Amino acid sequence: MKTHSETIDVQTKGKGTYEVTEEVERVVQSSGLRTGTATVFIQHTSASLVIFENADRSARVDLEQFFERLVPEETDYLTHTSEGPDDSTSHIKMVLTRSSEVIPIADGLLQLGTWQGIFVFEHRRSPHRRRLIVSVIGE
Amino acid sequence: MKTHSETIDVQTKGKGTYEVTEEVERVVQSSGLRTGTATVFIQHTSASLVIFENADRSARVDLEQFFERLVPEETDYLTHTSEGPDDSTSHIKMVLTRSSEVIPIADGLLQLGTWQGIFVFEHRRSPHRRRLIVSVIGE
Amino acid sequence: MKTHSETIDVQTKGKGTYEVTEEVERVVQSSGLRTGTATVFIQHTSASLVIFENADRSARVDLEQFFERLVPEETDYLTHTSEGPDDSTSHIKMVLTRSSEVIPIADGLLQLGTWQGIFVFEHRRSPHRRRLIVSVIGE
Repeated sequence: MKTHSETIDVQTKGKGTYEVTEEVERVVQSSGLRTGTATVFIQHTSASLVIFENADRSARVDLEQFFERLVPEETDYLTHTSEGPDDSTSHIKMVLTRSSEVIPIADGLLQLGTWQGIFVFEHRRSPHRRRLIVSVIGE
Repeated sequence: MKTHSETIDVQTKGKGTYEVTEEVERVVQSSGLRTGTATVFIQHTSASLVIFENADRSARVDLEQFFERLVPEETDYLTHTSEGPDDSTSHIKMVLTRSSEVIPIADGLLQLGTWQGIFVFEHRRSPHRRRLIVSVIGE
Repeated sequence: MKTHSETIDVQTKGKGTYEVTEEVERVVQSSGLRTGTATVFIQHTSASLVIFENADRSARVDLEQFFERLVPEETDYLTHTSEGPDDSTSHIKMVLTRSSEVIPIADGLLQLGTWQGIFVFEHRRSPHRRRLIVSVIGE
């Protein structure tokens, strides 16, 4: 049994979803571990993680539209807007999705389903550099 | 320290919640581990996991009603509907719930609270066979 | 490699967010582990966990307001209300946030981002004693 950890930096271009499945898979491979789990953690409060359909881009467009309507920037009762109308809304969208995901590893590979990809969900309008930590534990 | 992993297949009958607590508990017992964690992961993008009240069925009916209204099939701006009106809505409901949960183990048992059960939340209208992976790590 | 587990009890004063970052950090330090992961798990179905902005209280006020409006107590189709109008709504708010979070550990410290704190999100009106389990695995 051992642990292995690496960081992944993702440059976003503003609101949207950015796939990181290959980058996470590379950390698992560089760990040399065959079985165990990979924890993916995002160190931010205005961007989050989702495991999502990765075959058809239209599914992600729908997801992004849904979140814009569920937590619209025009929400009048929000007060935490010192960084703009996408400030508090970003934190709320983050809470409705994930900060951490744990994915099983077998035969040295992430055990994702056929249509599953790992994505950073950027909630701010402007580009940001986002940091993930991948922690692999196993043998 | 060691790892132990098994898959659980769940046959759903369409939209709804399906309890898998006993099946997960059995994997923990068959691992022989006394202390550590159990990761439950679902390999799908149109079904998800929830830890939920398991005593009174009415709580689950309310949950299912809430999700139908929060993400209705009649949502006109959704475009990812090649598999039907429950296509994009299933992915969105999945994102609002969980793909992975990690539950502590002590004395060889899942440390769930008194009213907590583990459920598969099926978001498609038609029956599906859903695969979970349970990865136990500990000693 | 070893595991270490402790419980944390949190006394809430009714609906709201309660920071537990320091309590979780203390468990990591008492484990003596330098690298690995810390799983935080809440043993309840009417309170949940969030990793959230911990610098400005106004962000949390907005979060709490958003959830009150997304899942209002006045929702007429909810039937699981034997414990009051905050019964079913508490379970739904719990499902929309988290039961478990896994945070990487490096150099003996939780690898939270600059603005991230760990919070219990109490969904019931009345004060409750809530139990968390922190399970540390690593070396």
